[in-house]
Amino acid sequence: MTHPLRIALAGLGTVGAGVIRLLDANGGLIAARAGRAIEVVAVSARSRGKDRGIDLSAYAWEDDMTALAKRPDVDVVVELVGGSDGPALTLARQALGGGKALVTANKAMIAHHGMELAALAEQHGLALKFEAAVAGGIPVIKGLGEGAAANRIERLYGILNGTCNYILTQMESTGADFGGVLKAAQDLGYAEADPTFDVEGVDAAHKLAILAALAFGTAVDFGAVDISGISRIRAADIAQADALGHVIRLVGQAEMQTVKGEHRLFQRVQPVLVAKDHPLAAVDGPTNAVVAEGNFVGRLLFQGRGAGDGPTASAVVADLIDIARGNAVPAFSLPVAMLEEAPAADPGNRLGRHYMRFTVADRPGVLAEITAAMRDAGVSIESMIQHGHPLDGLDPVLVAIVSHEGPESAVAAAMRLLEGSPSLAEPPLVMPLLG
Amino acid sequence: MTHPLRIALAGLGTVGAGVIRLLDANGGLIAARAGRAIEVVAVSARSRGKDRGIDLSAYAWEDDMTALAKRPDVDVVVELVGGSDGPALTLARQALGGGKALVTANKAMIAHHGMELAALAEQHGLALKFEAAVAGGIPVIKGLGEGAAANRIERLYGILNGTCNYILTQMESTGADFGGVLKAAQDLGYAEADPTFDVEGVDAAHKLAILAALAFGTAVDFGAVDISGISRIRAADIAQADALGHVIRLVGQAEMQTVKGEHRLFQRVQPVLVAKDHPLAAVDGPTNAVVAEGNFVGRLLFQGRGAGDGPTASAVVADLIDIARGNAVPAFSLPVAMLEEAPAADPGNRLGRHYMRFTVADRPGVLAEITAAMRDAGVSIESMIQHGHPLDGLDPVLVAIVSHEGPESAVAAAMRLLEGSPSLAEPPLVMPLLG
Repeated sequence: MTHPLRIALAGLGTVGAGVIRLLDANGGLIAARAGRAIEVVAVSARSRGKDRGIDLSAYAWEDDMTALAKRPDVDVVVELVGGSDGPALTLARQALGGGKALVTANKAMIAHHGMELAALAEQHGLALKFEAAVAGGIPVIKGLGEGAAANRIERLYGILNGTCNYILTQMESTGADFGGVLKAAQDLGYAEADPTFDVEGVDAAHKLAILAALAFGTAVDFGAVDISGISRIRAADIAQADALGHVIRLVGQAEMQTVKGEHRLFQRVQPVLVAKDHPLAAVDGPTNAVVAEGNFVGRLLFQGRGAGDGPTASAVVADLIDIARGNAVPAFSLPVAMLEEAPAADPGNRLGRHYMRFTVADRPGVLAEITAAMRDAGVSIESMIQHGHPLDGLDPVLVAIVSHEGPESAVAAAMRLLEGSPSLAEPPLVMPLLG
Repeated sequence: MTHPLRIALAGLGTVGAGVIRLLDANGGLIAARAGRAIEVVAVSARSRGKDRGIDLSAYAWEDDMTALAKRPDVDVVVELVGGSDGPALTLARQALGGGKALVTANKAMIAHHGMELAALAEQHGLALKFEAAVAGGIPVIKGLGEGAAANRIERLYGILNGTCNYILTQMESTGADFGGVLKAAQDLGYAEADPTFDVEGVDAAHKLAILAALAFGTAVDFGAVDISGISRIRAADIAQADALGHVIRLVGQAEMQTVKGEHRLFQRVQPVLVAKDHPLAAVDGPTNAVVAEGNFVGRLLFQGRGAGDGPTASAVVADLIDIARGNAVPAFSLPVAMLEEAPAADPGNRLGRHYMRFTVADRPGVLAEITAAMRDAGVSIESMIQHGHPLDGLDPVLVAIVSHEGPESAVAAAMRLLEGSPSLAEPPLVMPLLG
């Protein structure tokens, strides 16, 4: 065995503490697999005194975490601070600029600054690894960038946010509305005090942008992800989906389209009606799942726990074992200069069936107005359900329409025709059907 | 880019031809990801003249495939000949002994000689890789040996044979019996002319033994796998399982048990009743799936196409990309000397519910005899169904019993009590329940 791989840990929240516990619990096995020991040398966090249930006395402490990047006794900086910019980004730049490999669980930072950091790593011949940034403990970065590396990936989709999936499956099993389930999830620690990034789809979009770059060989383009979240989904939508043989899941989807010989990248996070016999429908609670379709391998599915200290620590230490073994893979599986800048695709010609839910005033002529808009926009209606009783005890009632397969542009046109209609109590909610 | 990685291909069946087609179709992408081109230099197969739909004119031809191992212009030998011994093993030994890395899809050879070949590879500092040997295109060798490398794996199970899974799901959807479905599968090319290795569980056992070694850090011990296949399953069993909320799948399972501080390895391939809400129940047709439970990562599921030229070629080329990138991982994720020789576990104290099916003469006293055996062996009966009508138009009728949770040893004792009973038209069929 050669000398140990010496790491510095920035951030001692649940994941940071989990990494220390994992290295401690499985240290012998990890050293045997890695070919050398992996040793924590120094740590940094906001508060030194806080009780984290782990013994930090063997590690050097740095009040200023950027000092970790300057220590001559450190090979790898592990960044577990979080946040797309600020201290995490400063530390990442200083680590790679200062000759240290970087391992991070920071999806926001990689989604926003992944290209810059990958270029910096490449320039200095250092590893930049972020398995823990996407789908917790599931080795999907490795699965796409190495396991499926021989394939042109044609399509990628998955359940990338455990909080949303937990909330949706709780709504399913309890019949409760979004607000109540979110509150319960917060009380249980399954949702953050400020849940915006999770429930509005931003966290899933960070992960999707990273996976898309890796799968399609494109530059990370988080800004081009079309994002909608789950906060507008009602118990009645879940019940309606159930009656149609579907469940509702927040799904991130990416596809490479070729239009007149030019590549266009489609990236979207949105709630979707998933047919009950589709593998994603069985993904319950805080589980994540990613499906990738390669031109030789066919459909691959990776599934597991998408968050939590154990799974995330497992991914961080897998990255460290790779580094200890001396295994080098470009951060996005291709040299940065070869990552293609693909413009965003026009989603209008995507074909599919759509669920459209309207909250309407219970008065004559409303259905005629909605169906006329469908007709004028060329949307063919497969089924329509109007609930006879007011929804949630409110005056407006719910009308749900499922379209036959057709282009998204027609559905969008129908929605534009209905925009601002006094018949609608709120903007319509549109979700595609999958499977 | 450095010089190309030069490969020699032994065996030009569907997988060999698939590798050539894949390198041709995705060559640019593969070279970009690998950091250098991957070039076929020489090939060998039984018949030179056979039309395989691929152009071999650019490659040197060797009538004697062991000559591939001696060519100075070759870096890696890719063995796609098959068979646990014979020419494949000779070639593998000569390749590794002669300074060439070895990539193989040969599960039988790795299950029988994996330790010897891994030691040889290690001794010469060469790569030995076999992603394609297990579960087709699914990167499960990489997933366990690298992606989950930080974990102590506690349990591993999965659907490892696509032919059996195809037959079982066809029996499910058509209600037909084993023989008829097998015949149809053979006509479609989904089952071999001699299907013994597949339907009797040997192929799945090869794969299980490899995965168990990788997951638990033990020496491959194929001989210790307890194997039963699917040829005795009747349409009536599938119908019975369905009525119980289950489907039947051929499942490989491995577990590390600790008895008085000593490790014992449990390895078994057998048909199992899988609850319909378990992820493995949704694995249909020729799909494979592997579940691994790690002590930090929790439950991981890998799923995809388990066979076929495209998926298998994808796995072979993924191994080649790893070698081209210079990434080295021990064949079984640990140095050979560290792989533990764990004795086989005694399955008797494993707890579970069991499905027991008896084919009995329709005469008084039979049920009393069976239930008395259950009582005397301490098996508690949860439910019992006797079909009123003769099975398949034959005289004997079918009795199905599901036990409450209890030790396997009790079920085995009950079977021993009934051994040779004139009431039974054939030995009972016992399958555990999963989920």
